[in-house]
Amino acid sequence: MDQLSLTNPVFASYAIAASLMILKGVAMSWLTVIRMMGENGGFRNPEDLKKTMVNPRPNDNQIAPNERVERIRRIQLNDLENLPYFLVAGLLYVTTAPPPILAQFLFYGYVVTRLLHFVAYFTAQIHDIRAALWTPGSLIIIFMAGSTFVSAVG
Amino acid sequence: MDQLSLTNPVFASYAIAASLMILKGVAMSWLTVIRMMGENGGFRNPEDLKKTMVNPRPNDNQIAPNERVERIRRIQLNDLENLPYFLVAGLLYVTTAPPPILAQFLFYGYVVTRLLHFVAYFTAQIHDIRAALWTPGSLIIIFMAGSTFVSAVG
Amino acid sequence: MDQLSLTNPVFASYAIAASLMILKGVAMSWLTVIRMMGENGGFRNPEDLKKTMVNPRPNDNQIAPNERVERIRRIQLNDLENLPYFLVAGLLYVTTAPPPILAQFLFYGYVVTRLLHFVAYFTAQIHDIRAALWTPGSLIIIFMAGSTFVSAVG
Repeated sequence: MDQLSLTNPVFASYAIAASLMILKGVAMSWLTVIRMMGENGGFRNPEDLKKTMVNPRPNDNQIAPNERVERIRRIQLNDLENLPYFLVAGLLYVTTAPPPILAQFLFYGYVVTRLLHFVAYFTAQIHDIRAALWTPGSLIIIFMAGSTFVSAVG
Repeated sequence: MDQLSLTNPVFASYAIAASLMILKGVAMSWLTVIRMMGENGGFRNPEDLKKTMVNPRPNDNQIAPNERVERIRRIQLNDLENLPYFLVAGLLYVTTAPPPILAQFLFYGYVVTRLLHFVAYFTAQIHDIRAALWTPGSLIIIFMAGSTFVSAVG
Repeated sequence: MDQLSLTNPVFASYAIAASLMILKGVAMSWLTVIRMMGENGGFRNPEDLKKTMVNPRPNDNQIAPNERVERIRRIQLNDLENLPYFLVAGLLYVTTAPPPILAQFLFYGYVVTRLLHFVAYFTAQIHDIRAALWTPGSLIIIFMAGSTFVSAVG
């Protein structure tokens, strides 16, 4: 059977989880834009202080760090440190022909904990909560990459 | 038919777009190196101030932020926030067996707008131009991930 | 033959290299956590200064940049600038049906030079050594992406 095909239920589960995570990751860019517009600041480039249709009354403060914008940037960086590894580890894990129930538990467990991690980070919950919601996803990536390694070597 | 094979024209189109985007992404690292050499600065690590063959006359200013180097780093970070999602979303989109013309429009449209976005960012065009060239690529990723989600669930 | 399957020795080699690199990348997150605990600082979020079980005696210095933590963050960022491109370029390169010996040389050469690059960066070796260990990996990605492009166009 062709493993990397939507006719394979394990791959279909992966594709659902992966596309949701991609949408989540891309949404951080849009959220940064929304925050920058709401704050009218948090920009990063010297040229962003030029007068344009979108920025009719520029001022130097617009390029200063803005905590509400920086928070989204930190969330986005956290995504970059995690999602690409999940996306590839999950794809490779599909090729090991895992039990479908286990695979779905890992894929959807990743999605759920990452979305909760976002809520916790976005609302500035204490570190311990954020860490508790980050850890399962990281362990899932490690488990999938480790399983792939064992299957590929074996 | 094996979808993820160069015998599939849709996959071949994806492979062309993906390899171009990978080369573009990697080129940012080399461009950072070139800029750091041209500026003789913009370094980031304390140990980069040690006297070596490449840096025969070190001085403390070399580790200060250098706008010409930082610009490339911002462009590179923008790539990291976008290209990995495109690379995986595009691969998954191939498995939905999209119409070849539509797929090529999305893949090559992404490449063209990202390259134009680079030119605009590199030459410090106003934000509005940069945003106009970033937006299509982001919408293409969203469309491909959304289509994959619908196909995988359906 | 199904190329993206563990029954293909070239794909199996890729899967070994890719899973090792994913584990390496994820390990940087854990190393950051370990360093932050060891330094009792290097945090990034305002809310990380709240008193919690993990941080019973918070103080404002904990949110100041800490060079020992920042070093790991720079290593992690270097991974983000390289590993995702390797992971996708390697997968695409498998679909070009390369000679197995060449493919293994590229995949395992990447893994070895990246691990040595980590050791050099972690132990703060001079820039010239770090650059010498970064360059082969970048050239490997360029070669694989270029080969994929040629195969896909041809």
